[in-house]
Amino acid sequence: MSAGNLHVIVLAGGKGTRFWPLSTPNKPKQFLSLFDDRSLLLSAVERVRPLVGNDRIWISTDGELADLARTELADLPHEHFVIEPVARNTLPGIALACAQVRAVDPAAVVAVVCADHLIRDESGFRSLLASAAALAARHDCLITFGIRPTRPETGYGYIQFSEHTDDEGSFAAYGVQRFTEKPDLSLAEAFVREGHYLWNSGMFVWRLTSFFDALGLHQPELLDAVDSIADDPARLSETYPRIVGVSIDYGLMEKATNILVIPAEIGWDDVGSWESVWNVWQRDDDGNAVSATHEGLDTRDCLIFGGKRLIATVGLDSMIIVDTDDALLICPRERAQEVRALATRILARGKGE
Amino acid sequence: MSAGNLHVIVLAGGKGTRFWPLSTPNKPKQFLSLFDDRSLLLSAVERVRPLVGNDRIWISTDGELADLARTELADLPHEHFVIEPVARNTLPGIALACAQVRAVDPAAVVAVVCADHLIRDESGFRSLLASAAALAARHDCLITFGIRPTRPETGYGYIQFSEHTDDEGSFAAYGVQRFTEKPDLSLAEAFVREGHYLWNSGMFVWRLTSFFDALGLHQPELLDAVDSIADDPARLSETYPRIVGVSIDYGLMEKATNILVIPAEIGWDDVGSWESVWNVWQRDDDGNAVSATHEGLDTRDCLIFGGKRLIATVGLDSMIIVDTDDALLICPRERAQEVRALATRILARGKGE
Repeated sequence: MSAGNLHVIVLAGGKGTRFWPLSTPNKPKQFLSLFDDRSLLLSAVERVRPLVGNDRIWISTDGELADLARTELADLPHEHFVIEPVARNTLPGIALACAQVRAVDPAAVVAVVCADHLIRDESGFRSLLASAAALAARHDCLITFGIRPTRPETGYGYIQFSEHTDDEGSFAAYGVQRFTEKPDLSLAEAFVREGHYLWNSGMFVWRLTSFFDALGLHQPELLDAVDSIADDPARLSETYPRIVGVSIDYGLMEKATNILVIPAEIGWDDVGSWESVWNVWQRDDDGNAVSATHEGLDTRDCLIFGGKRLIATVGLDSMIIVDTDDALLICPRERAQEVRALATRILARGKGE
Repeated sequence: MSAGNLHVIVLAGGKGTRFWPLSTPNKPKQFLSLFDDRSLLLSAVERVRPLVGNDRIWISTDGELADLARTELADLPHEHFVIEPVARNTLPGIALACAQVRAVDPAAVVAVVCADHLIRDESGFRSLLASAAALAARHDCLITFGIRPTRPETGYGYIQFSEHTDDEGSFAAYGVQRFTEKPDLSLAEAFVREGHYLWNSGMFVWRLTSFFDALGLHQPELLDAVDSIADDPARLSETYPRIVGVSIDYGLMEKATNILVIPAEIGWDDVGSWESVWNVWQRDDDGNAVSATHEGLDTRDCLIFGGKRLIATVGLDSMIIVDTDDALLICPRERAQEVRALATRILARGKGE
């Protein structure tokens, strides 16, 4: 498989409240080993390594996580870690990383992928990246990967796609009609029913020239700031904090007109809550997904995560139990989304770390 | 308040499965501090100390717990710890302790009390002990304390009392018609309805001469064994293990005819499960009884016991959560009785210690 001059930027920021108490601000989701003995970050890197090699993998993260990321990925070149002095949402971080790639390979095509997602079909994903890179090399476009919705999820963005634009044999690329961030339930249900909607996966492919052209058009101040830092990297710590934080979706994808979306059937899951882990983990005879020392009496359909300490349960149904050295979480599975709010409250009070 | 020549034997054996994982075989219930900063054992001793002083308090326990008891009660005379080499149920342990008291005070009246019960009215309890001791000094009888049933509890023994026999001003003593161990629910309901039934508290008062006379009548082999050990304490380790284990209720109280029962309105609770603790502990605004670092979202009527480690809960109702260094227990409050079975299973497998 050839990937031309494709570089991959792995987005590895994030606060880590959804998997509290296993994740914390000092060790957010991408550093957890939820599905095998590798961290999600290491999995994300190893997933693209066969396609581009270490020399064309870049890690975008913030200052607080830089050391952890460098330790986790010790065989990546030191200068491939692009460190935001402060977090400024997704678009500035992506722009900073793209500028750093531009410095070594201005004609590069870049894939932006997430450090904390699950992709079951790894080789299918690499094929798709290679095909998308070929498309981006030919066309001045910003490509996003869309996931076919399986439920009316209200926590995702939706992409309404239009006419068929191009195909690369194994896949089709479509024009984009509209982005809709986190719709309410009835709208999400309508989207799923209607059929011309995809979930926004948060992964992108573009030629650097296309990206910076679009940035100049829609976020000229951000482009100026990033160019200024590229001219003199010593300006980073002074200039970057003054950048206004904006998401890639709101700041660029919803404004640009040369967007293409590629439906990606790659076994994707954003691992957005413990419920995602529940969906992936193997169940025992009682329907429990257990990674812990567990002894249960009449305990069913529970997700139980712990360590050596014994977790004993009586008469539990569809609960999440997460037991770490620092804290313990007990929550019904159907309320897994509320963990984020609780963790935010706890972390704000300075407890639970 | 005078207590004549009353001695108090505190029964401090027991396996500790009901309060697992807080209690363990190495630290059963009587060594836990469930209601204040004192262990239940220390509370039991301090409860009777104003009445009899350290010189007339005796601790009956088994070899595995002897060191722990001596450490907990360092100001009691060393020879007042009566140690069973092996546990043989309640009657042999009581007989052994009574023989040890007999060696220093053959005319003594003895009160046998439990190390692991809660008694809210401590001065009322002392008055009752003193009055019962006076009664036992006058009459050749075996006195037991009965608790007025507040629910059809199936885990206790019931005492059916008959005609009024004696009174000591502040209390009445009744003859005993029948003992019934752990009735089924319909029988327990009938007992509570009928009204002439009391719970068996497991606390007794008698003159030593009355006790040993009854023992000679109903358990002559046990009396021989205990007398033999009293004659030569070196025989303890050889003779005691050959004694057949039997409970005080089955072995003596159900057979003797000179039993009196005194209704004891002393705020008694046998602290038989986490539900007892729930009934005693103060509740917060959400109805939770918490002794832990706890952060809850929509969490009500739960008993939460832990330490420094944060316990975070979402959407829980009427649960018991017990978090110790070694193990974690999660169980609906209404199933607290099942903890014993689970703990027994766990301890048998050698986990959870």
